[in-house]
Amino acid sequence: MKRITYKNIASPKGFKATGIHCGVKHKKKDLALLISEVPASVAGVFSTNAIQGAPLVVTKEVVYTTKKMQAIIINSGIANSCTGKQGVIDAYTMQEKTAQHLGISPALVGVASTGVIGEAMKMEPVLSGIKELHPIDELEGAIQFSQAIMTTDTVTKDTAYKTIIDGKEIMIAGTAKGSGMIEPNMATMLAFITTDANIESDHLQAALKSITDVTFNAITVDGDTSTNDMVVVMANGLAENKTLTPAHPDWDAFVDTLHVVSQDLAKMIAKDGEGATKLIEVEVQGAMTDAEARMIAKTVVGSPLVKTAVFGSDANWGRIIAAVGYSGATLDPNAIKILIGTTPVVENGEPVYFSEEQLHLYLKQAEVKFVIELNQGNGQGTAWGCDLTYDYVQINATYRS
Amino acid sequence: MKRITYKNIASPKGFKATGIHCGVKHKKKDLALLISEVPASVAGVFSTNAIQGAPLVVTKEVVYTTKKMQAIIINSGIANSCTGKQGVIDAYTMQEKTAQHLGISPALVGVASTGVIGEAMKMEPVLSGIKELHPIDELEGAIQFSQAIMTTDTVTKDTAYKTIIDGKEIMIAGTAKGSGMIEPNMATMLAFITTDANIESDHLQAALKSITDVTFNAITVDGDTSTNDMVVVMANGLAENKTLTPAHPDWDAFVDTLHVVSQDLAKMIAKDGEGATKLIEVEVQGAMTDAEARMIAKTVVGSPLVKTAVFGSDANWGRIIAAVGYSGATLDPNAIKILIGTTPVVENGEPVYFSEEQLHLYLKQAEVKFVIELNQGNGQGTAWGCDLTYDYVQINATYRS
Repeated sequence: MKRITYKNIASPKGFKATGIHCGVKHKKKDLALLISEVPASVAGVFSTNAIQGAPLVVTKEVVYTTKKMQAIIINSGIANSCTGKQGVIDAYTMQEKTAQHLGISPALVGVASTGVIGEAMKMEPVLSGIKELHPIDELEGAIQFSQAIMTTDTVTKDTAYKTIIDGKEIMIAGTAKGSGMIEPNMATMLAFITTDANIESDHLQAALKSITDVTFNAITVDGDTSTNDMVVVMANGLAENKTLTPAHPDWDAFVDTLHVVSQDLAKMIAKDGEGATKLIEVEVQGAMTDAEARMIAKTVVGSPLVKTAVFGSDANWGRIIAAVGYSGATLDPNAIKILIGTTPVVENGEPVYFSEEQLHLYLKQAEVKFVIELNQGNGQGTAWGCDLTYDYVQINATYRS
Repeated sequence: MKRITYKNIASPKGFKATGIHCGVKHKKKDLALLISEVPASVAGVFSTNAIQGAPLVVTKEVVYTTKKMQAIIINSGIANSCTGKQGVIDAYTMQEKTAQHLGISPALVGVASTGVIGEAMKMEPVLSGIKELHPIDELEGAIQFSQAIMTTDTVTKDTAYKTIIDGKEIMIAGTAKGSGMIEPNMATMLAFITTDANIESDHLQAALKSITDVTFNAITVDGDTSTNDMVVVMANGLAENKTLTPAHPDWDAFVDTLHVVSQDLAKMIAKDGEGATKLIEVEVQGAMTDAEARMIAKTVVGSPLVKTAVFGSDANWGRIIAAVGYSGATLDPNAIKILIGTTPVVENGEPVYFSEEQLHLYLKQAEVKFVIELNQGNGQGTAWGCDLTYDYVQINATYRS
């Protein structure tokens, strides 16, 4: 596989995108549309929160019942969550009006919303806005789309890779938004992935689910799981490869590429966490199982004390080992090794000499890494997060006002 | 029972306390001693972190093996955690030298430490300091003690109550320190409770354990569980009541009083969380079980988004309901009612009209309360926490430096 720059969700064959300002937000873009020339196979994973936003009702129906998706309409600014029966009616209306505008069946149209919980949808601007949406297959349309799905994100998040299947070049591209209420098991996170690969929905769903566990579910910003979030993959088959199944000789090439696209987006979301100045990667080796390794990695990267220490570029490994200790994983305190970057700071559970000054400089970088070796088994896992800063507090103490 | 002001851990008959600056910290008091005239029955609960500070090894031995305690020596500034074999030797040396100074058996002396993890104990100042400790049974000694156990705490935390058992007045008093790394299952929290009641260690332990679940384990500051923390109760029997057992007619009076002392200290710790400006109380009613109610309450009070909204005095109930949703508890989204103070903001899972201005004023108070009614069963529970502020970030980004 190969990463390709200047490519985007509108780059795989037959996809178009756009984004506009319709009036849900005061000034910024707030309405986005992604469409495939033909109905695409579809897979989706959704928030595990017991409270589910209204758009999830609609989009789950498309993913699980229609099992094909041709377009998805997204608004930012209001989450349409905890909005009762009217909220569900509004989400279905968004689906129907988008279908009408595009001249396709409503059953093929997904809906997503992100923003404030508990506010009623502003349907008037959304419905007038839908009529103004004219998706294009050029970079400009994809940029507009990426911008229109943002809430407190500071940058758009896009990635694209190509790989060869049946001798044909296929492309997988994605775009996502963060950036608070981010925690494993889906968060205030929307990610849309397009590909021109030919694959059935069921196989796509299985691939997405296993990839999600080690990518989108391995990031945390603040431990809050949102009510609204989803990852949707649309595969329209226009690359005309033989239908991908686990028996296809190039299955791994496809899955690996989808994995890298998902991981790129997940890391971008973590790095652009609300108020964040740094991406933190925590790699755990030698745990009893992969699941325990991921649990430890997520606990460490989610610790407010670790996050604030990274913000202060302080090599405070005591907070790292304390978080390992309360993660709930099986461990022998006397067998733990911890590295900050490539510098060992703990061996056999005890501190070893290191240069504070050198690690202070290391921790000032935009991406920092901790490695934790437990020496208990062969389990490994990685999680990503960000530092906790004054700006996180500022953003969230004033979000609604 | 009756709360009594100006009373303290040295007030129950036969207890003395003191605190001094010995030199672990730069300037502030850092060494404290609590002693009973006679060996006291003892109970203790300790951090559940898999990494345990060295002092816990020593104090658990006193609580579980000796089952009597006569004195406890505490230093602040260094946690003596992740300090390997030398750390354990140092903790035993603190025990032994304190015993020598007091002329009692080392097996009766507990040890506690709080501060930075992974730094070796500064034994020289501690050992000279021990010789300078002269506990007294007056308010002054108790204040010095409370001050000497503080780390980033901004206020001392003391409470005392009296009750009548067998027609005799008995007193239960406590002092505690917080204030970061505070999370259920023991955190960077030390609490010492003294009473002149007559009770065996085993019954005292059972009472403390059940009370801890709904008091000290029901608070959270930042979700980080420390390696070092403990609650110790010493009961020296000098009030000369008939030995308390669950069969004693005044058993409930004793347990209720111990509960209130523990709850007072827990709330003081939550309120003085690092950087906090407000105490948040979350009460959950109508959950399937008490345990689920407490789980929901702790999830809501621990949500960074709820905590920042409270800091901003923003009636952002959407974040409250989102946290209820991801708590993992059994619930029907359409049956939830939420009150901010006494004002309903959600009924049957949908927003109801309220005055933003009025709730903004309510949320500006130093203590705020949310009530969540699930209408699922009879389970109830309460948790306490604090808001998340710029100062939390400031304190923790610069803690070691």
